[in-house]
Amino acid sequence: MSNLLGNSYRVTIFGQSHSPMIGAVIEGIPAGIVPDMGFIGAFMARRAPGGSPLSTPRSETDAPRILSGLNDRGETCGAPLCAVIENGNARSRDYDSLRDVPRPGHADFTAAVKFAGHNDIRGGGQFSGRLTAPLCFAGALAMQLLSEKGVRVRARVKRIAGIEDAPADLADPPIDAISEHGLPTLDGEAARRMAGAILDAREKGDSVGGVVECFATGLPAGLGEPMFDGVENRLARALFGIPAVRGVEFGLGFAAADMHGSDHNDPFRVRQGRIVTETNRHGGALGGITTGMPIVVRAAFKPTPSIALPQRSVSMGRSEDAELTVGGRHDPCVVPRAVPVVEAAVACTLLDMLLEAKEA
Amino acid sequence: MSNLLGNSYRVTIFGQSHSPMIGAVIEGIPAGIVPDMGFIGAFMARRAPGGSPLSTPRSETDAPRILSGLNDRGETCGAPLCAVIENGNARSRDYDSLRDVPRPGHADFTAAVKFAGHNDIRGGGQFSGRLTAPLCFAGALAMQLLSEKGVRVRARVKRIAGIEDAPADLADPPIDAISEHGLPTLDGEAARRMAGAILDAREKGDSVGGVVECFATGLPAGLGEPMFDGVENRLARALFGIPAVRGVEFGLGFAAADMHGSDHNDPFRVRQGRIVTETNRHGGALGGITTGMPIVVRAAFKPTPSIALPQRSVSMGRSEDAELTVGGRHDPCVVPRAVPVVEAAVACTLLDMLLEAKEA
Amino acid sequence: MSNLLGNSYRVTIFGQSHSPMIGAVIEGIPAGIVPDMGFIGAFMARRAPGGSPLSTPRSETDAPRILSGLNDRGETCGAPLCAVIENGNARSRDYDSLRDVPRPGHADFTAAVKFAGHNDIRGGGQFSGRLTAPLCFAGALAMQLLSEKGVRVRARVKRIAGIEDAPADLADPPIDAISEHGLPTLDGEAARRMAGAILDAREKGDSVGGVVECFATGLPAGLGEPMFDGVENRLARALFGIPAVRGVEFGLGFAAADMHGSDHNDPFRVRQGRIVTETNRHGGALGGITTGMPIVVRAAFKPTPSIALPQRSVSMGRSEDAELTVGGRHDPCVVPRAVPVVEAAVACTLLDMLLEAKEA
Amino acid sequence: MSNLLGNSYRVTIFGQSHSPMIGAVIEGIPAGIVPDMGFIGAFMARRAPGGSPLSTPRSETDAPRILSGLNDRGETCGAPLCAVIENGNARSRDYDSLRDVPRPGHADFTAAVKFAGHNDIRGGGQFSGRLTAPLCFAGALAMQLLSEKGVRVRARVKRIAGIEDAPADLADPPIDAISEHGLPTLDGEAARRMAGAILDAREKGDSVGGVVECFATGLPAGLGEPMFDGVENRLARALFGIPAVRGVEFGLGFAAADMHGSDHNDPFRVRQGRIVTETNRHGGALGGITTGMPIVVRAAFKPTPSIALPQRSVSMGRSEDAELTVGGRHDPCVVPRAVPVVEAAVACTLLDMLLEAKEA
Repeated sequence: MSNLLGNSYRVTIFGQSHSPMIGAVIEGIPAGIVPDMGFIGAFMARRAPGGSPLSTPRSETDAPRILSGLNDRGETCGAPLCAVIENGNARSRDYDSLRDVPRPGHADFTAAVKFAGHNDIRGGGQFSGRLTAPLCFAGALAMQLLSEKGVRVRARVKRIAGIEDAPADLADPPIDAISEHGLPTLDGEAARRMAGAILDAREKGDSVGGVVECFATGLPAGLGEPMFDGVENRLARALFGIPAVRGVEFGLGFAAADMHGSDHNDPFRVRQGRIVTETNRHGGALGGITTGMPIVVRAAFKPTPSIALPQRSVSMGRSEDAELTVGGRHDPCVVPRAVPVVEAAVACTLLDMLLEAKEA
Repeated sequence: MSNLLGNSYRVTIFGQSHSPMIGAVIEGIPAGIVPDMGFIGAFMARRAPGGSPLSTPRSETDAPRILSGLNDRGETCGAPLCAVIENGNARSRDYDSLRDVPRPGHADFTAAVKFAGHNDIRGGGQFSGRLTAPLCFAGALAMQLLSEKGVRVRARVKRIAGIEDAPADLADPPIDAISEHGLPTLDGEAARRMAGAILDAREKGDSVGGVVECFATGLPAGLGEPMFDGVENRLARALFGIPAVRGVEFGLGFAAADMHGSDHNDPFRVRQGRIVTETNRHGGALGGITTGMPIVVRAAFKPTPSIALPQRSVSMGRSEDAELTVGGRHDPCVVPRAVPVVEAAVACTLLDMLLEAKEA
Repeated sequence: MSNLLGNSYRVTIFGQSHSPMIGAVIEGIPAGIVPDMGFIGAFMARRAPGGSPLSTPRSETDAPRILSGLNDRGETCGAPLCAVIENGNARSRDYDSLRDVPRPGHADFTAAVKFAGHNDIRGGGQFSGRLTAPLCFAGALAMQLLSEKGVRVRARVKRIAGIEDAPADLADPPIDAISEHGLPTLDGEAARRMAGAILDAREKGDSVGGVVECFATGLPAGLGEPMFDGVENRLARALFGIPAVRGVEFGLGFAAADMHGSDHNDPFRVRQGRIVTETNRHGGALGGITTGMPIVVRAAFKPTPSIALPQRSVSMGRSEDAELTVGGRHDPCVVPRAVPVVEAAVACTLLDMLLEAKEA
Repeated sequence: MSNLLGNSYRVTIFGQSHSPMIGAVIEGIPAGIVPDMGFIGAFMARRAPGGSPLSTPRSETDAPRILSGLNDRGETCGAPLCAVIENGNARSRDYDSLRDVPRPGHADFTAAVKFAGHNDIRGGGQFSGRLTAPLCFAGALAMQLLSEKGVRVRARVKRIAGIEDAPADLADPPIDAISEHGLPTLDGEAARRMAGAILDAREKGDSVGGVVECFATGLPAGLGEPMFDGVENRLARALFGIPAVRGVEFGLGFAAADMHGSDHNDPFRVRQGRIVTETNRHGGALGGITTGMPIVVRAAFKPTPSIALPQRSVSMGRSEDAELTVGGRHDPCVVPRAVPVVEAAVACTLLDMLLEAKEA
């Protein structure tokens, strides 16, 4: 089983790209919360396609509808909240040819093996990035609850096509300096160059990848569990649930592997009566447990596997090599739309840990 | 809760660095297996310290004892198998000063917060790398079962202190060319330079980090689940359970973020009647489900936080800045001993998925 | 968390009596199944009210709609199946007075405490028997899959208001002799007397309880797990999820407590080359594992707590004693409608065990 | 998987009747607790055999040893606590003949099927009542924690061989009047008659069953979850994990099925400013959530299946009918020793719910 995220804030996601609806059932929301549908809608709009030349021309109106979980005053009532989003604007025909010839880099082949050919091929079925919409609903609701606890979660595009955004102070990430317009970066010039690389890839029928960096501030120290249920384990589990993620790292991540201990260790200091670390190379967790410093996590996204160029594949039915040209409308780079998705996955996970510790 | 790994091959690890024993309870082992104690012992010896100038001079005799789970013929009987290892050779005094002054880069501070000062400070308590010994027991047993299915799991040191081992063909990793002696690498010269860097760091009272790369071959296509229970999610959850891991990536990992789709997608081909990918940049899983190609996963290890150099920290009791010099005996680099631990975490997880699919 | 049933056939139920919809998300359905909506609808109709003078005059049209989980050929595709049922015909006003004065025997008081007054009081909220409708959907789908394996699940009214149905041979339960019309019993005369007792209770503004007995035939031996995940543990967990259940027993159940071992032990015999028990006092499981004999389980239902007679209660707001007369429309006896619900809970659980053993 | 009980106070039990050790790993114990080994030992002694002519002459010295989970001050440290008990005094020869001929009423047959003949036949293997010893360890530790919260858990023999103990006021159970000597009952005369029935059965080579009734007082209202994770679901799951339990009921249980609603509903009243129910027919939980009234739960135990009389069985190897006389030393009635086991299962479950609600 696999569509469930979380222990205390439990999100079960359902749906396929072209099923009548997609949605999420959320258990564990504290009772008495009035979901801020304005905030949630705005958050989900950041993920929705169609708003930018950088993304797919498909337009999705991801207006969620809440089917259960609220009392007659519109408050959460302790029952599971089910929210659904209608699927529409589906061009199922686009995918018919993929039944036999799997798209390289996609789950068409593995799904066909696993589900003995019964997988829903339309639009990538349950493997579609579309399924991140209900995750964003759950994440936005989580962010609403987190913000009441002073916890903020904010991600940026760290890199696209090898173009880096400006470095950030991990111990005091400049969350408010992340641009709300265009690509969410610190450096506007970097954003422009990234956008150029994306449009360039699109023109060539190709795609590019990138890295999203997410910060979470305001968490208390002491959250998380040792060994297999720590901050990193849980965030990694959540983030690898986002399509196209190939790597996850915390703090300095892979760069730490090339350092000396004397350079990597973050000195503890007392500041305003509180124990902090002077630097934040550790990324907010030691031994799987929060230090109270900002969580810093990065996810690497591969280039969109759906490209317009002809590709080599196979005919599964005839068991022979084949050529494939992927039709349909696709993002030349998933990274911009992945930013709120990363935030959602992080927010769900952090709220889960706060609820487990009964601090939310 | 956090000490449990797996759904079908369920490993619960217990113990602290200086508790009377450490061990693991393993549920879900198929009945009728005779644990190969010679193989298991040899595997665990690869993790044990004391065998090399590159590691801590502490010597641990990690001879496991099986307390339950076998019938009178020495076969697994369907009951949980509990294996324990005695702790000995403990110098608890070494750690007394750490009660008040947490070691930078360690869990001393976060454990003190989480457990309100009741955490076991001796030897790092439950956060000690020593707890990877029972994980290795469980992993070695898993490898025994995997090998009967034709699945091999083998890791190497990919990088230490910035020194790279030779590149490998991810589609056909040269598992047997990984050296069994000294540092497990493909390139003996790289191994010598890495060893030099480790000894150099030790001499300076410092430490270095590195990257372990693990391959698993022989898996069928179709293992794993979509979304949050895929190959990557599970392996990442397991690997972030190993102390000092800061990043996990699959296939080309973070390098994929800088590529074009046309360069990253692995073409499908039919070879000897079987569908394979020509290259293996995806690292063995698409959509969280195995493709049948080798699993390729990398874990980044930070430099050992325990260094002999004086460090800045705080007195938690007096709430003021303090100096700290960490005594005790420590690895200047955990990476060499982490190689079998990574194999163990991977083996446990892959067996878990095979059992879930009833293919083991 | 509490709305999840099952490990391999995982049913998450959501909704409240008066929420826009109620429903279930089902993970773990084998791919390639075409849900038999005719069968499912007929099964759910057995639970639906309005069809009989013995039940509430509320009419519910429990037509389920499948939102996800099917491919374009209408087959299950490996993705979670979400089915919903519209709530309609709600008279929310009926319940307004209950916010302050909890109904004896209901969850009004405990829900108000647990959810700090935010619980959905309308129609009993998430505690309503209405939530058994999505359970019946999941159960009917489970029965469809079970029947393909030769497993049949059938329950009867064993007792209402102290009136017993005819005894059954537990080793060979006469499933097909259970009446499809009126009350599902073996003995038509008993059914008539039970119906009389129900109508009599209704006339007096009172209610009656009873016992449902469920049989499952055709299961292989060897299903279930020792200790806490055996047949009895799982079935009991499921059955106590049905509102009003106060006791669950297997085989001879509480009657076994008064017997001698020599009378209670079921002799093993070889019949047609198969090992069976001559009698079935054990009810189909020994040590939590199926013997291959029919599962026999009984659930005791308390009399409907909603009665028309005036009752003593309290004002929670004023913290003083109060009187209460429950309005609304209620079943004078939940037992008849509980019969398919018991079947559904049993079917979901047995399919779960079969899938876990990969025998379905 | 099946040897795990609880979500927040997680008890994993391991061992077989004749494995070197049996034990439990307990996760989730709050840090800073000093286990009261005197209390725990005394509690476990109530379960241990050998102390009475009413039980088996086997003597077990169930002295538990704690392998992990304590810091250097003997306090729980947040790490899993593993406690083990040595197995000794085993006469494995007694069971050799059972490999082929399964004992009626035992798990020999089902275990042989499930584990393909690899099950540990010695002493019943993992199905042995001996495995309730580590459960009692976990339960005694739970009771220590519960008593600090004012929660008391106490069971009595309600019935043996059809002989009833005196009735108790369920709203105010006379816990302290339960005899500590001989059979734990309210009525000494009933205890003597029960003892006579047990000795009589033993003399005839037979066995008798009975009912244990357990009370838990001092719980706050509001514990437990709706639907499948309520008080009843969890307690039933735990209690059916005790060998020989055939039925579980709450409050009036099966007797409620024969009542009218007007007789069964417990009126709410305000007493000393607190909302209580006047009577406690509901047994302490409504809608799966505690009311604050005493929990009342009953478990029916079948007569010990091991009897000295010759019985009919089969040869599994030759697939033909066979005769069997069970040797070894057995309790003619498990009920007396089951009393602390029931308390342990209840205590573990209630502590689990309190911890989940962060009230312990």
